[in-house]
Amino acid sequence: MQNPVTVEVTRGNRVESRHRGMAVAVDGAGRIVFSAGDVEAGVFPRSACKAMQALPLIESGAADAFTLSARELALACSSHSGEDEHVATAAGMLQKAGHDLSVLECGAHWSSDQQTLIHQARTLERPTALHNNCSGKHSGFICTCVQSGWDPKGYVGYDHPLQAEIRAVMQALTGAVLDRDTCGTDGCSIPTYAVPLTGLAHGFARMLTGEGLSPARAAASRRLMEACMAEPFYVAGTKRACTRLMEVAPGKIFAKTGAEGVFVAALPEQGVALAVKCEDGTSRAAESMIYALIARFFEPGSETRDTLIAMANRPLSNWNGIHVGDIRVTDALFA
Amino acid sequence: MQNPVTVEVTRGNRVESRHRGMAVAVDGAGRIVFSAGDVEAGVFPRSACKAMQALPLIESGAADAFTLSARELALACSSHSGEDEHVATAAGMLQKAGHDLSVLECGAHWSSDQQTLIHQARTLERPTALHNNCSGKHSGFICTCVQSGWDPKGYVGYDHPLQAEIRAVMQALTGAVLDRDTCGTDGCSIPTYAVPLTGLAHGFARMLTGEGLSPARAAASRRLMEACMAEPFYVAGTKRACTRLMEVAPGKIFAKTGAEGVFVAALPEQGVALAVKCEDGTSRAAESMIYALIARFFEPGSETRDTLIAMANRPLSNWNGIHVGDIRVTDALFA
Repeated sequence: MQNPVTVEVTRGNRVESRHRGMAVAVDGAGRIVFSAGDVEAGVFPRSACKAMQALPLIESGAADAFTLSARELALACSSHSGEDEHVATAAGMLQKAGHDLSVLECGAHWSSDQQTLIHQARTLERPTALHNNCSGKHSGFICTCVQSGWDPKGYVGYDHPLQAEIRAVMQALTGAVLDRDTCGTDGCSIPTYAVPLTGLAHGFARMLTGEGLSPARAAASRRLMEACMAEPFYVAGTKRACTRLMEVAPGKIFAKTGAEGVFVAALPEQGVALAVKCEDGTSRAAESMIYALIARFFEPGSETRDTLIAMANRPLSNWNGIHVGDIRVTDALFA
Repeated sequence: MQNPVTVEVTRGNRVESRHRGMAVAVDGAGRIVFSAGDVEAGVFPRSACKAMQALPLIESGAADAFTLSARELALACSSHSGEDEHVATAAGMLQKAGHDLSVLECGAHWSSDQQTLIHQARTLERPTALHNNCSGKHSGFICTCVQSGWDPKGYVGYDHPLQAEIRAVMQALTGAVLDRDTCGTDGCSIPTYAVPLTGLAHGFARMLTGEGLSPARAAASRRLMEACMAEPFYVAGTKRACTRLMEVAPGKIFAKTGAEGVFVAALPEQGVALAVKCEDGTSRAAESMIYALIARFFEPGSETRDTLIAMANRPLSNWNGIHVGDIRVTDALFA
């Protein structure tokens, strides 16, 4: 199946580049309420599913035992930019669990946000594992291991009890079979599993609505999503897409990006969850796609919808600030 | 016309992302010797055509009048990383023409190369126009203006005599009509014109072979391409694709990238020029495409061909250095 062109990038009066992709919106019962492209194809959710991966942090009792704040829970679901507040918060989570950064197995990298990287270059010799965009998720993993009585060593491995627990949670939420065949290795070394885009969206719709979940899992899901919406800076960072999206309409949009052009969102008022994948893995397109898809679910004429449409169809400027073209979504997503 | 998938990005045993694109190889007479995708569609060459834009620097007599070195000529054709040597060389060119960086109209930006940006952040308050990746091209423009008796002010504008001259040169080389309709504004504020990919490749094939050119233009073309091949660091920078490509087989490959997934190359021994455009504008795909397309023109079993194939089909590692997948070209480009 051919995925449609969902985003065009113009220059002058020509289209310079085109992005294809798929997009789906699903309710708690699994009904598809919008779809474009091959939404049954397997997609690696990458970091977009971090809130799912954080469920054992709540369900194990670790979040309560270590009195994790909303900021800390948001950071456990985050792909942060490595700003000072992110790094300090991750360090604090590890300290509560009786560990320090030496326990982390995510690797280290400089920030991919330019302004943060400039700050890091001026204040650090080199980044540590705490600066890794996944350090909050990994610090949550350590809390879960300690609370569950699991030796954290090797916690990123497919056979570690933590990853087995995450696999079971994600399989129940998405309805997909997660095994060695569908498994790849993520940037931070944990397993990532290819799931149909519809299954990914349905999993978030279940988390959002609690439909088909135990009361405990429904409550844990709500707690994580509410923490992210309450502390959007801790889910991403300054000027980042997830943070900006959750600031557009506080409490009305949960959103999380993943590498290679994946983006998910969940809308509490509408009871639907959304997932997009840009076929070529480009963030600029995935961002426009999720902005436009979310906009469909807000009232025509509302400020939220107008803001989202303006984010989806945005001008591009050059180094002198001159308007040179636009990024715009096609009518495959928003007519 | 549907462009084929030319590059796949894998994770585990799945394809995670796909890039489509077009590719063409043309000889000096304009014969198409390889083609994939819609190679007659208009494409903005962006920085890929800088060697064409530098022809007036030679033809005006400025290069001789200001005794420009091979390094300076290479920098005039470059999209450099803003490393110290690039910045100093651009400043030297301006000084020879009796100007300084205040004459530049390209705007300023931090390096897009991470290691260079870290160095810049530690040594600079902020970048200047000399750090702009186009500062070598613009310094060449200033030399041309001074030699030609044109006031440099407004030299980036469509109606300035410099841009009119560049337009005439590029129209003659590519055979395309360059006018306000096909014109967009580039990142550094000069005009960029949509031309068919075949026309872009034919233009470079003419520069390479001299076919259909005046002796003076043929000599100027050869001089610029030879300068780039002799000083590949000054065309891009440390670890950059253009620099690495021209180091694979010194004197046998001219190569230049442009924004939004364009890449051109010219092969002196084979007398052909190549141009690719990744439909979605992604550099990783454009790089694999040009590596594979160049490889087709070297002998099976040769070191050059094997090196290029290995560059085109390369492993991807995560933050811990673990092999997580591959970038690979499809048989649309290389069977």
